[in-house]
Amino acid sequence: MKIANYLQLALLLTIASSGVSRVPAQTPATSVAQSQLSLMPVPASIQLQTGRLAITDAFTVATRGYTDDRLRASIARMTRRLAGRTVITLPLEPAVDESSATLVIQCERGGSSIPSLGENESYSLEITDRQARLVAPTVVGAMRGLETFLQLVQGDRDGYYLPGIRIQDQPRFPWRGLLIDIGRHYQPPEVLKRNLDAMAAVKLNVFHWHLTEDQGFRVESKKFPKLHLMGSDGLYYSQDQVREIIAYAAERGIRVMPEFDIPGHSTSWLVGYPELGSAPGPYKIERAAGIFEPALDPTRDQTYKFLDGFLGEMATLFPDAYMHIGGDENEGKQWDRNPRIQAFMKEKGIKDNHALQAYFNQRVLKILQKHGKKMIGWEEILHPDLPKDAIIHSWRGPASLAEAAKKGYDGILSAGYYIDLIFPASQHYLADPLPADSSLTPDEAKHVLGGEATMWGEWVSPETIDSRIWPRTAAIAERLWSPRTVTDVDDMYRRLAVVSRQLEELGLTHERNYHVILRRLANSENTDPLGTLVSVVEPVKEYQRYEMRPQTMLSPLTGLVDAARPDSEAARRFASMVERFLSDAPHFVVYRSEIRDSLNSWRAAGLALDPMIDRAPALQEVRPLAKNLVDVSAAGIEAIEYLSTTKAATTEWRNAQLAKLDEAAKAKAALELSIIPSVRKLVIGAAEMPRPKPTAPARLHNEQ
Amino acid sequence: MKIANYLQLALLLTIASSGVSRVPAQTPATSVAQSQLSLMPVPASIQLQTGRLAITDAFTVATRGYTDDRLRASIARMTRRLAGRTVITLPLEPAVDESSATLVIQCERGGSSIPSLGENESYSLEITDRQARLVAPTVVGAMRGLETFLQLVQGDRDGYYLPGIRIQDQPRFPWRGLLIDIGRHYQPPEVLKRNLDAMAAVKLNVFHWHLTEDQGFRVESKKFPKLHLMGSDGLYYSQDQVREIIAYAAERGIRVMPEFDIPGHSTSWLVGYPELGSAPGPYKIERAAGIFEPALDPTRDQTYKFLDGFLGEMATLFPDAYMHIGGDENEGKQWDRNPRIQAFMKEKGIKDNHALQAYFNQRVLKILQKHGKKMIGWEEILHPDLPKDAIIHSWRGPASLAEAAKKGYDGILSAGYYIDLIFPASQHYLADPLPADSSLTPDEAKHVLGGEATMWGEWVSPETIDSRIWPRTAAIAERLWSPRTVTDVDDMYRRLAVVSRQLEELGLTHERNYHVILRRLANSENTDPLGTLVSVVEPVKEYQRYEMRPQTMLSPLTGLVDAARPDSEAARRFASMVERFLSDAPHFVVYRSEIRDSLNSWRAAGLALDPMIDRAPALQEVRPLAKNLVDVSAAGIEAIEYLSTTKAATTEWRNAQLAKLDEAAKAKAALELSIIPSVRKLVIGAAEMPRPKPTAPARLHNEQ
Repeated sequence: MKIANYLQLALLLTIASSGVSRVPAQTPATSVAQSQLSLMPVPASIQLQTGRLAITDAFTVATRGYTDDRLRASIARMTRRLAGRTVITLPLEPAVDESSATLVIQCERGGSSIPSLGENESYSLEITDRQARLVAPTVVGAMRGLETFLQLVQGDRDGYYLPGIRIQDQPRFPWRGLLIDIGRHYQPPEVLKRNLDAMAAVKLNVFHWHLTEDQGFRVESKKFPKLHLMGSDGLYYSQDQVREIIAYAAERGIRVMPEFDIPGHSTSWLVGYPELGSAPGPYKIERAAGIFEPALDPTRDQTYKFLDGFLGEMATLFPDAYMHIGGDENEGKQWDRNPRIQAFMKEKGIKDNHALQAYFNQRVLKILQKHGKKMIGWEEILHPDLPKDAIIHSWRGPASLAEAAKKGYDGILSAGYYIDLIFPASQHYLADPLPADSSLTPDEAKHVLGGEATMWGEWVSPETIDSRIWPRTAAIAERLWSPRTVTDVDDMYRRLAVVSRQLEELGLTHERNYHVILRRLANSENTDPLGTLVSVVEPVKEYQRYEMRPQTMLSPLTGLVDAARPDSEAARRFASMVERFLSDAPHFVVYRSEIRDSLNSWRAAGLALDPMIDRAPALQEVRPLAKNLVDVSAAGIEAIEYLSTTKAATTEWRNAQLAKLDEAAKAKAALELSIIPSVRKLVIGAAEMPRPKPTAPARLHNEQ
Repeated sequence: MKIANYLQLALLLTIASSGVSRVPAQTPATSVAQSQLSLMPVPASIQLQTGRLAITDAFTVATRGYTDDRLRASIARMTRRLAGRTVITLPLEPAVDESSATLVIQCERGGSSIPSLGENESYSLEITDRQARLVAPTVVGAMRGLETFLQLVQGDRDGYYLPGIRIQDQPRFPWRGLLIDIGRHYQPPEVLKRNLDAMAAVKLNVFHWHLTEDQGFRVESKKFPKLHLMGSDGLYYSQDQVREIIAYAAERGIRVMPEFDIPGHSTSWLVGYPELGSAPGPYKIERAAGIFEPALDPTRDQTYKFLDGFLGEMATLFPDAYMHIGGDENEGKQWDRNPRIQAFMKEKGIKDNHALQAYFNQRVLKILQKHGKKMIGWEEILHPDLPKDAIIHSWRGPASLAEAAKKGYDGILSAGYYIDLIFPASQHYLADPLPADSSLTPDEAKHVLGGEATMWGEWVSPETIDSRIWPRTAAIAERLWSPRTVTDVDDMYRRLAVVSRQLEELGLTHERNYHVILRRLANSENTDPLGTLVSVVEPVKEYQRYEMRPQTMLSPLTGLVDAARPDSEAARRFASMVERFLSDAPHFVVYRSEIRDSLNSWRAAGLALDPMIDRAPALQEVRPLAKNLVDVSAAGIEAIEYLSTTKAATTEWRNAQLAKLDEAAKAKAALELSIIPSVRKLVIGAAEMPRPKPTAPARLHNEQ
C-alpha cells in the first residue's frame, strides 16, 4: 500500500509537471544554439558560427540600398540602447564607408509607411568577426532584425560582443497584437508609448486600442464632443494625441487598430447622447466592473446616422484598414424591455436578440464599407450575412477560430491570451492559434492570422499596467512569431527573465514599480519581510479578485494584490527543487538544505510581518496571509525533518497538515500562496514515501 | 602623549560632528511636536493637540467661501494621493454639507491664476477629533496647506489618521525655485511635469526653465525657426508644450520663469543664425562640457533687432513678470579677436569686456521693458546703470547678495544650492540666503527674496535627473520656507527619508531608477553585491567627474557613477555608529558588533564582485574600487579587533593602514568610498586611544 501510494504520487508529479513539459521542439542544432542565447521570440532558423564581433567605441552603422527617415531613426534608437547597455559612447553619425562599418543594413524598400497586414517582416542577420550584415526586403523587416541584433549582445572579461551567427527569420503569423483597454482605466500617452516600444522589442505588430467602454469614452470627437466631454471624466485622447500615437507606432512598424465597442459596452456614449440608448436614460459613467445593460438602439435610423458621422470621423483619424466594432457581451436586456424595439423585431421578423444584433452589425458594416474600412469584431458577430473580408476575433478558443476558418473567415485568437486573468506565462505560452492537432487543411489554416494578448483594464493603473502586460506578453509574442515547435517552457522562462530586464531600458515599469508599491505599503526603504511574503504569493486568477475584494473604477490600485506578480518565480523555483528532492527517494538529499532554507526564511518573514502590519493599516488585510505563510512553512519544515530520518510521518500528522494546507490555500486579500502545492507534496511524501533502511544511511553525509 | 593624542582625536571628532550640528533650533514646544511628525518643510508654527482624525472611506472634503476649478483640481489630486497611500476607496464628490465633512477648506480668494511673486501662500490648519479645517487667503495658500495635510497622515493598528494639531504657516522667502537646465540634456515634458508635482509637494514656487545653452536651443520660435530646428537635434519644446507646462505649473501655484542665456552660452543660437555671432562661423551644436567662446555680437543693431523679435515672441509665450537673461561665463574671447568689435569699443569709450557686456545688457533691458518684462540675470549683470527692479541671481554666495541688497537690488541665492555638484543634503541645508550673522538692516534684508536649487544638465538623463534633484532639493525647499532656526541636520535627514518615499507617489523616479541602473549593470534581478558597493560610494564632487571620466553630451549616462547617490546613507549611519563607538572609550562596546558586521559585509561584497565584473564589461572600471572596499573594510576589521582587546595597535600598523586608506581614498570610476573617514578614525583609535586595564574587562560580556 505504501508503494502503491508512492506510485500514485509519482504519477501525480508526472501529471503536474506535464503542464510545464519539456518537449524537445527545435531541431537539435537550433536547440543547442538557442541555449547559449537569450533571443525572444526565437528566430525561425539559427546557426551559431565561430568568432565574435566586438562592440567598441568604434561601432558604426552603414546602410546600403534603400534608406529613409524611419530606418535612420530605428538605427539611432538601437544605437542609443546599445550605448546605454554597454556604457560606451557611440557616434551619432553613420559609417563613412560600408567596409569599415560594424553593422551594415541592406533594405530593398520602405514597406508601407503606415504598417499594414501582410507587411513583409522577414530579415536575415549574419555576424562574423568582422561585421554584422542585416538584410531585409523592407524597413520593417530591418527593424525586427535590429531588435534581434540588440538581443544578441553579450559581455565577458574581454568586453561586449555579438557571437558569430547566421539567422533567417520571419513570423509564423502576420497578426501579432496587444489590446489595451483604456476605457475602464485611462492610461496617459506616455504609458502607451513605452508599451509600443516594448511591443516592438518582442516583434508584436498590432496595437489594438480599445477606446470606448461603459466606464469611459476616451477619444475626442469633433463632431460629437459630448461623447468625450461627458463620457470620460476629462480623461481622453485629443485627436492630436491619437495622431502622435499612430505615428509613434508606425515608426516602430506597428499598426494601430481602434475599437469602438457597440452596441453593448456603451454606457459612456449615452451620458452625452442618451437618445442613442435603448432605454430613456439619463445615463452616468459606469463605476463598477461587470456586464451592463445599456446598448445602442438598433431600431432607429438616428443611431446609424450618428454612427455614420462618428465612425466616418474615426475612419479619417485612424489609417488602419480595419476597425474593430467589439460586439461582445450585449445581453439585450434593454432591448427586451423596450416595447418599440420588440415591435420593430416583430415587424421585421427578427427572431431574437442575436438576430437583432446581426441586423445592427449589417448596418454598421455598410457604414464601415462606405468609409473604406474592413470590419473586425468579437466572435459574436459571426453570422451568415457577414462578408468574407470581415475578421473574427475569438475569445472562446482555437476551435471557434477553426470553425470560422472553415467558413472562409479570417480570424485571430485571444482566448488563452487574457493577461488580465493573472495566469502564468507558461499557460499563455502553450496556447496556440493553430495547434498541432488542428483539423484545418493548409488552405483553411491560412485564415488563422494570429492573435492578440488582451489587457483588459478593470484593475490596472498607470503605475501597475506594465506589470500585468510584461514580461508575460513576451511569451505570447514568441508563440505568435516563432515556429510552432518552440515550446520549451523552462527555456522560455530563462529567456523571459533576460528580456524582462531589457524592457526596463525602454522605460517599462513592471519591475521598478513593484518595489515602489512595496515601499509605499511598508512605509520604508527596507521592504523585508513584506517582499518575502509577496514573492511567494500570486493574485487570485480569473475573475475572483473582484468577488473577493470588490472595488470600483475609482478605487486605488495600490494594495498588495496590485504589487503581487502573476507568476511567482520563487514558487516556481521551489516547485522545481521539491520535485527533484522527492525524485531522490529514498535518500532525499538533493536540494534538501535549500528547501529547508527557503521554508525557514518564509516562516521568519511571516512572523516578522506583524509589527510592520501594525504600522501600516493598508496591510491589515494580509495578516491572515502572513499567518498562513508561517503555518505552511512549518508544515514543510516538519515534512523535511521526517524525510531526513528513517521514520515516516503518521497518517494523523499527514491529515492534520493537509487540513491546515487546505485552510491556508483559501485566498486572503485576493492573494494565494503559490507554494502550497509543493508543500503538499512534501507532506504526502513524508508520510508515504519509502525510506532507506535504518542501517544504511549511506548518502546522508553527502547532503548538499 | 597617548592622552594628548586622544584629546586631539576627541577634538577632531567634535569638529567633524559640528558639521552635522544639533542646534536646538525650534522653540521647545515646536521641537517636541516636530519629532513626532515628518513635515517638510517644517511649518512656521506647530502645536500638537490631543485626539486624532480617522481617515476612512467616509472621508469627504467641503469648501466654503471662495472656490474655483484650480482648488477643486487640487482637492481631487490630494484625495487621489490619500487614497493611493491608504488603499481606501474615497469618494469623488464633495461633501454634501460642511458639518459632516472630514476636511473643510475655506479660501478668501483665488489669488493670481498665473502665480506671481509675492502671492500670499499662508494657511492655517487645525485638526481635531471631528474635523480638519484649512483656512487660507488664497487658493495657492490652500494648496500649500493640502500638502501639509497629506504629510500629516499616519497609521497604526487602529487605522490611518491625522493627529490633532494646530499649524500656522507661511514662507520665510517669497522666491523658492528650482532651475532645470534642459539645454545640455533635453528632458521630455513628462519629466518636467513630475518634477513640478514634486516641487509643489515641498512648497517650491518657481520653475526656472533654462531653455538655451551651447549644447541645445530647446524652445520653438515661430519667428526664427532655425533656432530650434538647427540648434536642438530635434529635441525642443513646441509652443503648445510650453503652454501646457506653464498651465500645469500654474495649477500647482508655481511660476515658470524662462531663461535665455546671452550673450555667452549661445552656440546653439548661432548654428541657424551665424550672423549673430562675434566670429564668422559656421557653428555646430556643442557636444562637450565647459565654457565656450561663442557670444552674440553686441555691436550690431541687427543683434538687437533679432533679440527684440525673439524675446518679444517669448514675452508673449511666457506670462511670468520676469525673464532671465543669464549673462554668465562670457569670457569675451570672440570679442577680443574681432577687430570690428574692438573698434566699436574704442569709438564708444567702452573700456573692457565687462563694460561691453553692460552695454549689451542695457540694450537688452530696454527690449525686455518694451515687452513688459523685468530683468533677472546672474550676478555678472550688476552694474551702476542697472535699474532697481532688476533681480540679481547670485552664484557666488550670500555676501554678494548682501552687497546687491545694500545697493537696493533684490536678489536670489543659488550659491550653496548647486545640486549638480553632488554635495550632501546637509551642506545645502545649512546654506542660508540671509544668514544669522548677516550685516543687512531689516529693510535691506527684504531685498533677499529667496533662492533656487540649480540642476545643471551636463550629466543627467531623463532616467537619472530625478535622483540628482531629489530628495536633496526638499532640504533646500525647507531652508527657503521654514524659519531660519530650523537647522537640525539629523532630524532633516529623518524627515527627508519619509518625504523621499512620498515623492514616489507622484511618479518621481529617484529611487526606482537607481535599482534599474544596477539591474542593467549587473544583468541580473539580484544586484548583490553591486548594491552593497554602491551603497557606500558617492560620485566625486564639484567638477571632478568630467576630469576623471571625460564624456560628451552624447555619452550614455548609465554607468555606476550615474546610479551612485550624492549622499550615502550607509556611510552616514556608519559614521554615526563609529562616533558613538569611539566615544565609548575605553570600553568600545557600543555598536561594536554592528560596525564589525557592516565591515564584514562590505569586505564580502568587494570579494564577490569579481565574477560579476567578469560578466559585465561596463563594470570593469569599478574593479579597483571593489578592491579598495576590501582593503578599507579589512583595515576597519583589524582596528575593531585591536579595540576589542587591551592591546593597542603599533604605530607601524597604524601608518601602514593610513597609507592604505590614503591610496583607497583616490576616486575610481569617478566614485569615492564614503566610509574612509570613519575607518580612518577607527585605525587611529586602535593605535592611540586608551584601553581598560587588562585586569578589568568589566563590560566585555555586555557587548551589544
